[in-house]
Amino acid sequence: MSADTVPRTRPRERILETARDLFHRSGIRAVGVEAIAEAAGTNKMTLYRHFGSKDDLIAECLRDVGRQTMAVWRDLEERYPADKRAQLHGWIEEAATCVVADGRGCDLANAAVELTEPNHPARRIVEDFKTDHRNHLVELCRAAGIERAELLADTLCLLLEGARVSRQSVGRNGPSAKFPDMAHAVIAAFVRPG
Amino acid sequence: MSADTVPRTRPRERILETARDLFHRSGIRAVGVEAIAEAAGTNKMTLYRHFGSKDDLIAECLRDVGRQTMAVWRDLEERYPADKRAQLHGWIEEAATCVVADGRGCDLANAAVELTEPNHPARRIVEDFKTDHRNHLVELCRAAGIERAELLADTLCLLLEGARVSRQSVGRNGPSAKFPDMAHAVIAAFVRPG
Repeated sequence: MSADTVPRTRPRERILETARDLFHRSGIRAVGVEAIAEAAGTNKMTLYRHFGSKDDLIAECLRDVGRQTMAVWRDLEERYPADKRAQLHGWIEEAATCVVADGRGCDLANAAVELTEPNHPARRIVEDFKTDHRNHLVELCRAAGIERAELLADTLCLLLEGARVSRQSVGRNGPSAKFPDMAHAVIAAFVRPG
Repeated sequence: MSADTVPRTRPRERILETARDLFHRSGIRAVGVEAIAEAAGTNKMTLYRHFGSKDDLIAECLRDVGRQTMAVWRDLEERYPADKRAQLHGWIEEAATCVVADGRGCDLANAAVELTEPNHPARRIVEDFKTDHRNHLVELCRAAGIERAELLADTLCLLLEGARVSRQSVGRNGPSAKFPDMAHAVIAAFVRPG
């Protein structure tokens, strides 16, 4: 991304979008604020005026990723109103598309790998998002009338986390390619009374 | 780790062990060669004499992790000779212990998250290890007489990758705590003719 491709957005949005893109592609530690400011067509002083520190900018990027991901739940509810089983399978399709399309995996999980300091502000954002996301999936499984809803939701969460990390390690033709098959097989297995 | 705790090992081994420990705890990008040399009770010149560059040292650390992990297969064969099903369940126990005990997850998967350059020498090591590990698990599932051995092995691989990454994001009480239950449930589901 360069300044001339996003000429009309405001500096704050431009910095945020640029940082998200660079962190996503290259990793959080590999990218400095100088490079972000330059790619956003601004300067470090402006960056620090909008985001007090690199850590604050990281935190805001991760909140933004979280908001975008949680919006998927609302879209699924609108697309399949009152059909919880269809929402669940729709979620698998959405997740599978992400796994294939994006070789860099989940920005939130990646942040937890990179930011090892126990008190880094990003860690709390990651933990809260992952917990909310998991709880939403538990509710959906329960509303879909599935036995052992918690175990199924946790299994689907780990399969997706695993698919996204495997996609990074061995590419799109590795085990992650079978994520939808696995997810459907696991749902089928858990639908039977355990 | 400090020099006086490992006084009798040779510099190369000391540097390698120290680097593995620091990379594991703090991340690869967060640790510089200066800090590794100092913690190993030596200096940068000695480090570079044994390992041409930080990238070479990273690569050797990852090869070392891979060798150690693959040794688990041999241990399982010795512990449960000719009982493939017991080896498979033994592998799950070993993996579950790792998930709980180690909040930093798999060094090889973490390296793929951190080292985003497509030609980084570490990426090939990670890919080869993950592929070998997956193939070994496929063979074990097949030898254990399980239907859909490839899909089961891939599912177990992703569950474990997911557990190790989830353990980093939300801690030991999150979905990763159920890894053994999930793995056993999935095996039970796949044992039934599909």
